[in-house]
Amino acid sequence: VAAEKTRQLTVQMMQNPQILAALQERLDGLNGSPSGYMESLPKVVKRRVNALKNLQVKCAHIEAKFYEEVHELERKYAALYQPLFDKRSDIVKAAYEPTDEECEWKADEEEDDCPKTSFNQDEMKEKAKLEEEKKDEEKEDPKGIPEFWLTVFKNVDLLSDMLQEHDEPILKHLQDIKVKFSDPGQPMSFTLEFHFEPNDFFTNTMLTKTYKMRSEPDENDPFSFDGPEIMSCTGCTIDWTKGKNVTLKTIKKKQKHKGRGTVRTVTKTVPNDSFFNFFTPPEVPENGELDEDSEAILAADFEIGHFIRERIVPRAVLYFTGEAIEDDDDDYDEEGEEADDEVKPPKNYHMTLELTFWKL
Amino acid sequence: VAAEKTRQLTVQMMQNPQILAALQERLDGLNGSPSGYMESLPKVVKRRVNALKNLQVKCAHIEAKFYEEVHELERKYAALYQPLFDKRSDIVKAAYEPTDEECEWKADEEEDDCPKTSFNQDEMKEKAKLEEEKKDEEKEDPKGIPEFWLTVFKNVDLLSDMLQEHDEPILKHLQDIKVKFSDPGQPMSFTLEFHFEPNDFFTNTMLTKTYKMRSEPDENDPFSFDGPEIMSCTGCTIDWTKGKNVTLKTIKKKQKHKGRGTVRTVTKTVPNDSFFNFFTPPEVPENGELDEDSEAILAADFEIGHFIRERIVPRAVLYFTGEAIEDDDDDYDEEGEEADDEVKPPKNYHMTLELTFWKL
Repeated sequence: VAAEKTRQLTVQMMQNPQILAALQERLDGLNGSPSGYMESLPKVVKRRVNALKNLQVKCAHIEAKFYEEVHELERKYAALYQPLFDKRSDIVKAAYEPTDEECEWKADEEEDDCPKTSFNQDEMKEKAKLEEEKKDEEKEDPKGIPEFWLTVFKNVDLLSDMLQEHDEPILKHLQDIKVKFSDPGQPMSFTLEFHFEPNDFFTNTMLTKTYKMRSEPDENDPFSFDGPEIMSCTGCTIDWTKGKNVTLKTIKKKQKHKGRGTVRTVTKTVPNDSFFNFFTPPEVPENGELDEDSEAILAADFEIGHFIRERIVPRAVLYFTGEAIEDDDDDYDEEGEEADDEVKPPKNYHMTLELTFWKL
Repeated sequence: VAAEKTRQLTVQMMQNPQILAALQERLDGLNGSPSGYMESLPKVVKRRVNALKNLQVKCAHIEAKFYEEVHELERKYAALYQPLFDKRSDIVKAAYEPTDEECEWKADEEEDDCPKTSFNQDEMKEKAKLEEEKKDEEKEDPKGIPEFWLTVFKNVDLLSDMLQEHDEPILKHLQDIKVKFSDPGQPMSFTLEFHFEPNDFFTNTMLTKTYKMRSEPDENDPFSFDGPEIMSCTGCTIDWTKGKNVTLKTIKKKQKHKGRGTVRTVTKTVPNDSFFNFFTPPEVPENGELDEDSEAILAADFEIGHFIRERIVPRAVLYFTGEAIEDDDDDYDEEGEEADDEVKPPKNYHMTLELTFWKL
């Protein structure tokens, strides 16, 4: 009935020249907005714009191939980085002791020669050095770089947010994170390998997380294409030692007997916050529909996986020492800088991370 | 004298065990901060961390080569896009009339078949169509896509901010923007070519702006390397027709004669706001030192040049129609979305735009 009334009203309105004129005026007013502008174009011009849009779709498909070739390049360069990463891993886990030459850091030298150094700084340095040597003597001789990856995790907000106290003793055993790319010709993906030394928590020597990607325009929305996207991810089974599974906790619950009314206490096992939930991400169902929680978890997961691949693995030592310059820092002005200088440089060659499952 | 006093005070302080203990405590408190943490490490571990940093410098140099190869790929793909861009240009400037098939846009068809279409929408569409046809008859037959690039400029905030009213009649004559890359083996750079049809404003048929880039780690700060950077840019001379130079304006100024005290009015030529100032950017002096204004202008200039190359030229029609999805839009939530979903996806493969002259 309401629909019928609306219909009648609309018919009346459309027959009223004044209302029509007012409508037209409002439509004209929309010319400033892009869609209104398009509407206002003569038909012949609109035709030509469509031709340009068809050319643009072709561009999107060429762009997809470009990103595939970039991915090939990344694969090629991964092989070039690997010997350096392997050496890093060997130093971290004390499989290799670097030579004096390898350990010489230019900046340290320069600091000593710094003309600013006044004698009292020298004195303080001397004191600090003595303190340090004393400390070194007290400590047992450390092997490699203890807690290297745990420290990296703690220094990166994105990761430290996932870290629970009970995860830390486990992550002390993390010895390396490697990125493995899918083979050429295979569907685009990458796997993060977390290599652990033998430990009391689980029997795996490696935990894995694989991210499937796609580099082609969506047929229904070709213009949204902007490089490879992570589509889904899969984790691995962790073979926890009995009683060591930090992703579960037992809680005590009181149960009331329906008939007798007596109360008993039962222990129940429930999920527990842990970094290691990273290895059991929510699955994206066939129809692509996810509840809000799973969506949020996957959105964060994709971002973390991407960040580990793109930043953490290639620059781990800089996150260990805190020297890694985060893009976020660019959002803040240096003290004393003028507001005029607030030009945010665009980000560089990072792989896109659009959460495409939202669109499925 | 003040320095001497400070020195004496410091010596006294360093001899006071309580002050020393307090200092040590404060230093220990810094362990949470990365540099403090590094300080706290045993010497042998610090040595090994230095070895990792040296490996990281090697990574930065490999990364530089990666970006050079990406640049090669961009060059290769520029050649693949070019025929499509040439066709676009021909359609815009009416050198080519696209066929019916080329002008068929799937979405338009689909809209007509849309099940949502109720009869009153049909009626409104009919009215709109009649209006449109009437409009078309009134207008003289437009050639190509009039004001294509001017409309693009107006639809992009970054460009419309530079646009002055007196620039618009000139930009109506802009027929194409092309990106030309430096030849292989040459220093990395790209040139934006602005192609104009013959006009009353200047005799150039093309205005150019060249951006010099660099893709290698800074020796003094290798870890800041994050892809190619724009280093400087150069414009071109515009041969303005007499009286048409919009980058200059004449103002009247009153001058008082020193001796006689009489006042005369003189006309003075001064710079005028205009998009065309884009072709005379401030020069970066040899020592790299720039005043704040020039710095701000160049920061904005680099961003604009980069944006034209990376977004505007490859997707011009989407900026014309308003369909281009801006990254900035991602900063805003869709209505009704939960705050939990607020994960900003990282940006994708864009060329870095660090303003390196600040560091020179």
